[in-house]
Amino acid sequence: MEIQLWRSILCPYELAVKELTVKFEHMIEEYRENDRYSPIEQVSGRVKSVSSILEKMQRKHIPIEQMETEVEDLAGVRIICQFEEDIDTVAAIIRKRTDMEVKSEKNYLTHIKQSGYRSYHMILYYTVETIDGPKRLQVEIQIRTMAMNFWATIEHSLQYKYKGDMPPHVAERLSKASDAIISLDHEMSSVRNEIMDAQNSSQMQSNL
Amino acid sequence: MEIQLWRSILCPYELAVKELTVKFEHMIEEYRENDRYSPIEQVSGRVKSVSSILEKMQRKHIPIEQMETEVEDLAGVRIICQFEEDIDTVAAIIRKRTDMEVKSEKNYLTHIKQSGYRSYHMILYYTVETIDGPKRLQVEIQIRTMAMNFWATIEHSLQYKYKGDMPPHVAERLSKASDAIISLDHEMSSVRNEIMDAQNSSQMQSNL
Amino acid sequence: MEIQLWRSILCPYELAVKELTVKFEHMIEEYRENDRYSPIEQVSGRVKSVSSILEKMQRKHIPIEQMETEVEDLAGVRIICQFEEDIDTVAAIIRKRTDMEVKSEKNYLTHIKQSGYRSYHMILYYTVETIDGPKRLQVEIQIRTMAMNFWATIEHSLQYKYKGDMPPHVAERLSKASDAIISLDHEMSSVRNEIMDAQNSSQMQSNL
Amino acid sequence: MEIQLWRSILCPYELAVKELTVKFEHMIEEYRENDRYSPIEQVSGRVKSVSSILEKMQRKHIPIEQMETEVEDLAGVRIICQFEEDIDTVAAIIRKRTDMEVKSEKNYLTHIKQSGYRSYHMILYYTVETIDGPKRLQVEIQIRTMAMNFWATIEHSLQYKYKGDMPPHVAERLSKASDAIISLDHEMSSVRNEIMDAQNSSQMQSNL
Repeated sequence: MEIQLWRSILCPYELAVKELTVKFEHMIEEYRENDRYSPIEQVSGRVKSVSSILEKMQRKHIPIEQMETEVEDLAGVRIICQFEEDIDTVAAIIRKRTDMEVKSEKNYLTHIKQSGYRSYHMILYYTVETIDGPKRLQVEIQIRTMAMNFWATIEHSLQYKYKGDMPPHVAERLSKASDAIISLDHEMSSVRNEIMDAQNSSQMQSNL
Repeated sequence: MEIQLWRSILCPYELAVKELTVKFEHMIEEYRENDRYSPIEQVSGRVKSVSSILEKMQRKHIPIEQMETEVEDLAGVRIICQFEEDIDTVAAIIRKRTDMEVKSEKNYLTHIKQSGYRSYHMILYYTVETIDGPKRLQVEIQIRTMAMNFWATIEHSLQYKYKGDMPPHVAERLSKASDAIISLDHEMSSVRNEIMDAQNSSQMQSNL
Repeated sequence: MEIQLWRSILCPYELAVKELTVKFEHMIEEYRENDRYSPIEQVSGRVKSVSSILEKMQRKHIPIEQMETEVEDLAGVRIICQFEEDIDTVAAIIRKRTDMEVKSEKNYLTHIKQSGYRSYHMILYYTVETIDGPKRLQVEIQIRTMAMNFWATIEHSLQYKYKGDMPPHVAERLSKASDAIISLDHEMSSVRNEIMDAQNSSQMQSNL
Repeated sequence: MEIQLWRSILCPYELAVKELTVKFEHMIEEYRENDRYSPIEQVSGRVKSVSSILEKMQRKHIPIEQMETEVEDLAGVRIICQFEEDIDTVAAIIRKRTDMEVKSEKNYLTHIKQSGYRSYHMILYYTVETIDGPKRLQVEIQIRTMAMNFWATIEHSLQYKYKGDMPPHVAERLSKASDAIISLDHEMSSVRNEIMDAQNSSQMQSNL
């Protein structure tokens, strides 16, 4: 497939990522303007690179005609939360929205991957308006804490280096780091109520 | 009304402006990716400032409870086109979209304002998702050529200076400049077909 | 030359364009914050595309070792003014700055190109800090009014279409449009003093 | 002091923050383009809010005439690194640059604050060009890992809530979280060499 055709196929996914990034980033501001604690801390997004798409299609034996249905993460949005508890809140907010529809969810928090990977994944249907009319496409949302994100960034670099053949001593260190992150997230959760209180009291004050 | 309350009221309008700016700007890229001539050249947007809102409410005797319905340009998006003919194209595209609904249109091209002002205005209904659920609000879209925009910028500065009391010799100069712009836009329109052809042929070439 | 090497060579030029865009755009805000008329209306920038660089090197017989010295517009910044008189002001501001040095200037306002092209060009030396230390490079600055820019955009599209072989009837129309733009810019200049006054009086008021 | 005057004073600091953000963010891209490991992961910046400036001046008994010399963090830039070792690298890079000069440094990594706060701080002299000529001003740079930043964000919220009067049980939890973060950073450092190697080998490959 030529680069021109790829661009043309991925163009609506670019738009979906831009729109969703704007929408979730604005939520942070909206909570702040209303003096409420924001369950979202940071948002980022990307369209999958052509080389990553090809690699995934080959690995999973996906024929070209089924790319848009089978490669569910062509468009990806990552939402970073301060606390583990915020992840559920964000997922619940997404389920309620009228401008997107949940196709499926995967909970890698209760079902930690063998590598140590933890995150909450949702596949959404989302409609963008193209120059040829509306197009409904799929977007993957990853919701995680800063600490989980930190670990995932490191793990991704190492996976890339070893291409699926990580030496046991490296895998072990990663696993230990994952444990350190779980205990950090728990430690942090224990101060969460304090921070929520802080936000609520400042909100009440401003509403007097 | 306190500044905090203003911010909270205008917050969904900020979101509408951001979303619409992203959507219209992406259209430019989409035309380019598909090797087609884009009827949109530039997009900008703004939420009306509190002082301008207050001034308008006073001038038009709008009570505070009717602000959101009567002040139709709380959210404003400006679309700049290369050629006068593109203005109709853009208006037609907007009418067809499924994510916005046209409330009313005003054609200041066929009905030039006495000052010389020319533009195409549309009031749209547009729904944004807030933290309290979906909210349907009004947005004003102004569609004009670069030349019309140039004139409007100058006229706005002078109106601001003279606060509705412009001396005749200044008004006359503005009016002459408006004539120069009309003839420039016509001159430009006469080369538009050439440019459209250029785009179409390059598109055909890339589709071979 | 491989794409990787191109990227690595052009990387400091990307930085120069970003820094200069930030600097000139901030000037607009600075004038506004100080309630003064800004001679700059809009700023944009780009690094020349690899295909345009190759085309220019071939056309001008520039060997690869002399690319960075001979292709003076690898980095380009365009400054748009409201009025023709502002162009001189902007050029004078640039000459005075301590963070850039003027290599040469070309005045296509007094020496209009045969095509009708009008603009003020400056080639600057500008130093960016790279990961291997400071690097002094060249940047082209184009200064023009909105009307001149409008014409240049159209002319560029047509040149691209006809690849240097424009039919006489098109060239004639372009030339007429260029005349319309000159008379528009003059018409506009006649209201410039009014606008400058407006800004000055509002400044004085705020300084009382 | 009026809001207009504040804006005018802080305007050059806004510019400094914008320029430095562009410069440090571009370094990330430059490392990537050259297939090298980037010691910088993320950059953000801000100008201190007027209310925070006033609060600091009152707390530290700083007279208004000495604000610009004594409040060293009017402009602040935060640099986030993946690993603790990267902090030294970034500090060394800053010391070598020709476009900024180090005034002082504070190492809260070797001298952890009682609260548990860890970061590397530098005060720089940096010159921006204003419409009245060059102006040399101070900027504070904070360099920290993602984990340190995570902790600092939480601690800041709690300090704000308790206004310097944090209950012992909250302070204790924060301190435990700080320990968890130190051990996480150490765990991560143990895989750093693996990641550096990964980057170097991919770099060598692309240079063959």
